[in-house]
Amino acid sequence: MPTTPSNTDLRSMAASVAMRVEAAMHRDLEDALAGCDPLLAEVLDHALFNGGKRIRPLLTVLCSRCCGRDNDGLYLLAAAFEYLHVATLVHDDVIDHAPTRRGKVTVGNRFGVAAAILAGDWLHARSMHLIGQLTGSKGLEIFCQATGSMVNGEFEQLRYVADLRTSEAQYFAVIRQKTGNLIASTCAIGALYAGADPERTRALSTYGNHIGLAFQVIDDLLDFQGQAETTGKKTGNDFIEGKITLPLLHAIARADAQDRQAIGDLLQGDRTRPEAYRRIHDLIDRYQGFATAARVARDLVEQALISLAPFSTAGNHLPEITVLKELAGYILSRQK
Amino acid sequence: MPTTPSNTDLRSMAASVAMRVEAAMHRDLEDALAGCDPLLAEVLDHALFNGGKRIRPLLTVLCSRCCGRDNDGLYLLAAAFEYLHVATLVHDDVIDHAPTRRGKVTVGNRFGVAAAILAGDWLHARSMHLIGQLTGSKGLEIFCQATGSMVNGEFEQLRYVADLRTSEAQYFAVIRQKTGNLIASTCAIGALYAGADPERTRALSTYGNHIGLAFQVIDDLLDFQGQAETTGKKTGNDFIEGKITLPLLHAIARADAQDRQAIGDLLQGDRTRPEAYRRIHDLIDRYQGFATAARVARDLVEQALISLAPFSTAGNHLPEITVLKELAGYILSRQK
Repeated sequence: MPTTPSNTDLRSMAASVAMRVEAAMHRDLEDALAGCDPLLAEVLDHALFNGGKRIRPLLTVLCSRCCGRDNDGLYLLAAAFEYLHVATLVHDDVIDHAPTRRGKVTVGNRFGVAAAILAGDWLHARSMHLIGQLTGSKGLEIFCQATGSMVNGEFEQLRYVADLRTSEAQYFAVIRQKTGNLIASTCAIGALYAGADPERTRALSTYGNHIGLAFQVIDDLLDFQGQAETTGKKTGNDFIEGKITLPLLHAIARADAQDRQAIGDLLQGDRTRPEAYRRIHDLIDRYQGFATAARVARDLVEQALISLAPFSTAGNHLPEITVLKELAGYILSRQK
Repeated sequence: MPTTPSNTDLRSMAASVAMRVEAAMHRDLEDALAGCDPLLAEVLDHALFNGGKRIRPLLTVLCSRCCGRDNDGLYLLAAAFEYLHVATLVHDDVIDHAPTRRGKVTVGNRFGVAAAILAGDWLHARSMHLIGQLTGSKGLEIFCQATGSMVNGEFEQLRYVADLRTSEAQYFAVIRQKTGNLIASTCAIGALYAGADPERTRALSTYGNHIGLAFQVIDDLLDFQGQAETTGKKTGNDFIEGKITLPLLHAIARADAQDRQAIGDLLQGDRTRPEAYRRIHDLIDRYQGFATAARVARDLVEQALISLAPFSTAGNHLPEITVLKELAGYILSRQK
């Protein structure tokens, strides 16, 4: 009988890695900010140390370790991915005029738009600096391709706003660019740091891409179904912004002519009305949009697990691989 | 009798370098944007090709060439500095809610804040990518130190807003970080690309730092004295924003108690009133603030010229050195 994953390995490893990554961040900031303006340090502290889950650095660390390398530099490399992640969150919050994130006031709200844009730029620069230092031009190339594609994904998403004709392929192209590539690069650069062979590097990169996509699909579901108290976000945000996410896409694809028309009208109308949100929620539910999206996320996680095969044939069970598998499962079950 | 520099060399070299840099930018964008969203391409085109003077790429090219290296890669390296420059302008315009730049509508105004922040991030990432590819981790380190210090300079400047007690040392620390370091890095990375020896690299970096500072001091003067039709900017902007620039600092340092009090009141009062601007202008003039700042700029340019000494002892007159000297002179005389 297969054992049910208890997530104990995941939790304890995630906690110990997060601790080392945060220590590396503190040391790096002390270094990089020596003699700097105290406000910049304060803004960065506020942005970086706010109870983030540190999933990206965890992936870098696991991917390097399961390819055989573990040293102090690895946690600094991992920190670079957290810097980039936070840089994008800080800029996103400026774009969205978000007052809070994870229940805490945003950088832009507390310190102003100038501080938020500048601090994001600082973190962006610092992350690339670390990637370049620790993994050379090869790592930098993977990283910059991922950040470039992230920006492009945002632009494509802007173009599809409230557009009923958006295809599933376009949706997946957007989330691949916004999330999949970046998570894949997080894993690939971990493997690169360890000097992994192409087969293992590709395996980890594919794993990252699939869990990144699954993460985004679950995010889309939580936006409709999450509890605001748990996620720290208001539900229905994506609909209000006119984002065409997977549950909605499935409903659009299956709806009869009348309901399709109704969805179109809701998208083009005043999306801030609670009544509009309730109706779109009902329509998605009627056409199994939520159930279908959840199944897609499960399939993506399944693909992620399969891609780890090159690490199983060796006969030995690396704890890091166990944790990568648990992490994929956690992504499906997360409530925030 | 020494010949009076005619600026002919500067003009023709600046034009031919700008043409090659722009060609490199077009090729690079075509490459990097293959398959990308047309809106991203449009936004970048709008931001990058707007009659900019291309002074930063010119410096990179001149510094590499006077150290003996000139090839196609150099113009791409030079383009990276224009990308970074434009990235900061685009983000600055978001921060300042600027409707126009160089007489042209800003990215934020035309395409929205989201597009502006994202396009700035894209350019920032691309510039570092190119620097890393073309000059390795050494170049990347110089570059990232400069961008990090630029952000810190902005933070320090925010702290000194409307603060009468700002010292000249603090002012210079801000402009060194915001402009001096970056121009120095533009020159140093050109030298690095050419594999220059430490003495020449240092000489060019020092030259860059000094002309960067002079450029900023002249900018401060033009903000008070320029013709809006020529500069494309409204005069008095710095005062309205509460920036304590050099002409004002000199006036504060020399003013009698009563005028010092008056300056303080003007800084703390409603700075948008035309009457407030006229009065601060008069006070600065009374205490030779403008004349003193102009003298400081001349001294900085003098220092820049002196730093080029290692290139004169060889006995041969490199056209690039002549142009670097002319460029320093141009910075003093520029009207926009």
